[in-house]
Amino acid sequence: MTDKTTAWYLRSRPQGEVEPGHFDVRSEAVPEPGPGQVLVRNIYLMIPASMRIWMNAEDSYLPAQPLGEVMRGITTSVVERSDDPRLPVGTYVNGMCGWREYTVAAVEELTPVRVHPDIPLSAYRHVLDFQGLTAYCGLTDVCKPVEGETLVVTAAAGSVGSLTCQIGKKLGLRVVGIAGGPEKCEWLRAECGVDGAIDYKNEDVGARLDELCPDGIDMLFENVGGPVLDLVLDRINLNARIALCGLVSTYNGGEQTAGRSLMKLVNQRGLMQGFIVMDYLPRLQEVVGLLEPWVLDGSLVYQEEILDGLDRAPEAMNRLARGENKGMQLVRISPENG
Amino acid sequence: MTDKTTAWYLRSRPQGEVEPGHFDVRSEAVPEPGPGQVLVRNIYLMIPASMRIWMNAEDSYLPAQPLGEVMRGITTSVVERSDDPRLPVGTYVNGMCGWREYTVAAVEELTPVRVHPDIPLSAYRHVLDFQGLTAYCGLTDVCKPVEGETLVVTAAAGSVGSLTCQIGKKLGLRVVGIAGGPEKCEWLRAECGVDGAIDYKNEDVGARLDELCPDGIDMLFENVGGPVLDLVLDRINLNARIALCGLVSTYNGGEQTAGRSLMKLVNQRGLMQGFIVMDYLPRLQEVVGLLEPWVLDGSLVYQEEILDGLDRAPEAMNRLARGENKGMQLVRISPENG
Repeated sequence: MTDKTTAWYLRSRPQGEVEPGHFDVRSEAVPEPGPGQVLVRNIYLMIPASMRIWMNAEDSYLPAQPLGEVMRGITTSVVERSDDPRLPVGTYVNGMCGWREYTVAAVEELTPVRVHPDIPLSAYRHVLDFQGLTAYCGLTDVCKPVEGETLVVTAAAGSVGSLTCQIGKKLGLRVVGIAGGPEKCEWLRAECGVDGAIDYKNEDVGARLDELCPDGIDMLFENVGGPVLDLVLDRINLNARIALCGLVSTYNGGEQTAGRSLMKLVNQRGLMQGFIVMDYLPRLQEVVGLLEPWVLDGSLVYQEEILDGLDRAPEAMNRLARGENKGMQLVRISPENG
Repeated sequence: MTDKTTAWYLRSRPQGEVEPGHFDVRSEAVPEPGPGQVLVRNIYLMIPASMRIWMNAEDSYLPAQPLGEVMRGITTSVVERSDDPRLPVGTYVNGMCGWREYTVAAVEELTPVRVHPDIPLSAYRHVLDFQGLTAYCGLTDVCKPVEGETLVVTAAAGSVGSLTCQIGKKLGLRVVGIAGGPEKCEWLRAECGVDGAIDYKNEDVGARLDELCPDGIDMLFENVGGPVLDLVLDRINLNARIALCGLVSTYNGGEQTAGRSLMKLVNQRGLMQGFIVMDYLPRLQEVVGLLEPWVLDGSLVYQEEILDGLDRAPEAMNRLARGENKGMQLVRISPENG
């Protein structure tokens, strides 16, 4: 183990895409854990789409990332120094350990991960963690689906979207996913079992929605915003439910210009409800317990794309914003068995 | 009683404002009631803001008004010919009798109005009818207010808005109304008892919201849409509730360009719910019974503006769309005691 660690400090706030120049990258001494603390080596940095809005000056669902501090990051790590019996050396832990190689954290800030031998460690930082929780609770608690209803999912090939599609199928829904490009759509059809997939980059979304949702749209699980949101709202049924999970089309500073069709919410008595996964954290173990058997039996599939090295984290964010990634976007900060 | 009646048929669909030229005005023989029918003389035509969208080719919460048919209208009338003991001659009735002087309607399509001697007949077609029901149910059932919370109301000096403000005060809320012009704002402060009124035509709405809602905004009763909706969304609290009653800024064909701040719904877990007064019709008698004593004791005030003659109905619609009316906009088709 080295005695130096690299840490990324936010220097300035991006206007559009993220560049390495927005950060100060410093080499520092590996810190010593104090009482009640452990030293962890960070392995995976999870890149949620909303990470981009943490960097803005305005607070989002989290306080704005302060300038001059280590960039916040959702991580999976391994304990390397510990005197605490609750987290012995070698334990894998989830936490918010930031964009750095080594982090000292209080034991209470870390959650040990019980890794099933047939499931990769990384899955415990997305499908069997926040992404699975987001998909399951957003769909069941906000959309309140009824068997036979029609669900549309945007960013459907993304980490949350693809899980939402598959959970929707398990709940007996007609599921139509909207994604960018024929490859993503084919994956949704072949692997996620959706009833229809729409390539918003190459197809007439409105016409395809008419074709694939002959009984109208009862639920929208919305990750994107922008003009597609209007096209879906145009077609909602009475008492439709729209779960607003995120609006990734706006995160790089673009104004959200959708909303032309808000009148549909009035006419159809529609409900649009924003939600944040953190509110469902008390249900994490319940939901992971429900999803883990589906991951094991192969009935809940996922894709992940791992870029190697923290210096690729800005690129990872931009790939996600542009929709170039496939499934969950991760950065591998250090090897699992380092 | 004359044997001729004037009726307004929709000839073409307006793009922007309504003009007399959009109608065929015909003089016709007064129809004879058949079995189970009565003949009514129409007195008041109520002009709701949403009447404008009935005229569009697209269905709204009602089917699109067909071309070549008598324009739909919400009316108070008096029975002039009847063999039915349920509706003797002289009974005042509410119904959908359209833009015409005389209408033949089935007894079941008409609702007799029990007029309190100290309340004008016209009030039974707005405050003690759909407008009161809209305000009361939208506020209590959609916004679910809790004493001490802050409510913002747009089109606050309008018929529904001003009732919502006053009911909000009765429920112990901090109420801030947004209206166009100093006169409307002064009326809201002096007569409706709001805690603050914002003149969106002459004041900086964002700055005034900051000043008048020091604890943020818990509820919005939305009648307008457009940029003001964004300014309110910018300031919503956690778990805010937005009752979407209407979006009058869009009715004359303008696109709804608001929605920039939908991300606030995500971050604050906000709920936006469209609703339609017709869904609350089963509660009409309950709510009228609750509001009538407040009208009698003067603690629930309203304004109405009555234009005389059906030929002023297009003007009435345009005054409402431009915000030039004061309170409820009505057209007097014929005198109460004709």
